[in-house]
Amino acid sequence: MAIAWSEKTSSMEALSLSLSLPPPVILTQDELKKIAAYKAAEFVESGMVLGLGTGSTAKHAVDRIGELLRQGKLNNIIGIPTSKQTQEQATSLGIPLSDLDSHPTIDLAIDGADEVDPHLNLVKGRAGSLLREKMVEGACKKFVCIVDESKLVKHLGGSGLALPIEVVPFCWKFNAGKLRNLFQDSGCVAKLRNECKGRPFVTDNGNYIVELYLKREIGDLQVAGDAILRIAGVVEHGMFLDMATTVIVAGELGITIKNKQ
Amino acid sequence: MAIAWSEKTSSMEALSLSLSLPPPVILTQDELKKIAAYKAAEFVESGMVLGLGTGSTAKHAVDRIGELLRQGKLNNIIGIPTSKQTQEQATSLGIPLSDLDSHPTIDLAIDGADEVDPHLNLVKGRAGSLLREKMVEGACKKFVCIVDESKLVKHLGGSGLALPIEVVPFCWKFNAGKLRNLFQDSGCVAKLRNECKGRPFVTDNGNYIVELYLKREIGDLQVAGDAILRIAGVVEHGMFLDMATTVIVAGELGITIKNKQ
Repeated sequence: MAIAWSEKTSSMEALSLSLSLPPPVILTQDELKKIAAYKAAEFVESGMVLGLGTGSTAKHAVDRIGELLRQGKLNNIIGIPTSKQTQEQATSLGIPLSDLDSHPTIDLAIDGADEVDPHLNLVKGRAGSLLREKMVEGACKKFVCIVDESKLVKHLGGSGLALPIEVVPFCWKFNAGKLRNLFQDSGCVAKLRNECKGRPFVTDNGNYIVELYLKREIGDLQVAGDAILRIAGVVEHGMFLDMATTVIVAGELGITIKNKQ
Repeated sequence: MAIAWSEKTSSMEALSLSLSLPPPVILTQDELKKIAAYKAAEFVESGMVLGLGTGSTAKHAVDRIGELLRQGKLNNIIGIPTSKQTQEQATSLGIPLSDLDSHPTIDLAIDGADEVDPHLNLVKGRAGSLLREKMVEGACKKFVCIVDESKLVKHLGGSGLALPIEVVPFCWKFNAGKLRNLFQDSGCVAKLRNECKGRPFVTDNGNYIVELYLKREIGDLQVAGDAILRIAGVVEHGMFLDMATTVIVAGELGITIKNKQ
């Protein structure tokens, strides 16, 4: 059962596990995502250049930042979106936008993740925007990652879900084979990500995503990352190693904030 | 002055530095390229799957293979082109073609290079096809590199000409800055490759090329290569490390064949 959280509570400031709250209600995964996202929005200060993440959790954070701007509680924000999707969302909310070429240093980025390991290494990119996310989040002073507790894993790949790899479309099958061979000791299966109609999913950069499914750990993550990148035709992998400075986890027992040591 | 080579000599078998040749003639750089290319074609055997390179030197090799097929001196060849340009050339010559998805193992690749160091490490990609070349030439049992002697350098970058890096178009200026900073100790300058009309050059994969100009050596090449690939947004770099098995150099003193130790 998820944590007690009153539906009437309108801001995270009021969130508490106090016994004075109404009787416990079971929160959906989306509500947990929203709790983490709202907490992250507390890190935002007026005047910041902000990296705006992509995906169902990050969407809540972008909504919240738009709300705080509208309410006048924040001002002078510049958003750097990590996808066309987030760009559209932020534009519709009236968040002023720019890009890395104009703002190569970002104060704070807020984004979700698909997996978080005990060292705050992440798997990201199941929303399809891993490359732009990595560019933006690699350029920020602070990167606050927001997840519900289902995303916590003992080791990357441990969820049994996909580790996404962005590849050029040219001879993607050849490279899917190379990726599978690279991690054959980990029982790797490699599949092309498809749209619902069976066509390949195409990233904002015009590339494909090969999804790796791993049965066992892949060893030293930096070594594995370099080996992936050395395959000609791989554009980027979805492991975000040593990048998150803070992870906010919303779960049954409330919010946990983990900071990088 | 370039080596003596009779204009009447129609095949490389006849190439010799013998004094019985007609008086020395000065050969152009293109004629030297052709000599190297024709020599490389001698490595081709019927029944091979062949990687077909891109650029002014490789073009001569593809022409020669087409000629040998037409003459019936070769048969049952399958070519794997490294660019759309080479695909068109090979098609026009009647060379049967396939791709890496269907033929993941290649017997022999023949291609030019922009620089060759004493360890047979290469810079490639000034013709704009470095990614597909690296995919194809990384999949071959033998990779014969063909150059005129002007391509020999003491260290990669030593020609003073460009080391090409393929990057996604998204925020390429940001990544050009990252590349420049990575090699600032080597006096690196980073420029976008433009078409003649000032528009960015676009690769077969829809990406841009950032050209690095280096004043000094960049140190350990494998370390430098991994550091380049770790920049999110870099697709591939133009250093071909430990890939060439043979380099054929055509120069003033004739042909030199260097084999990997």
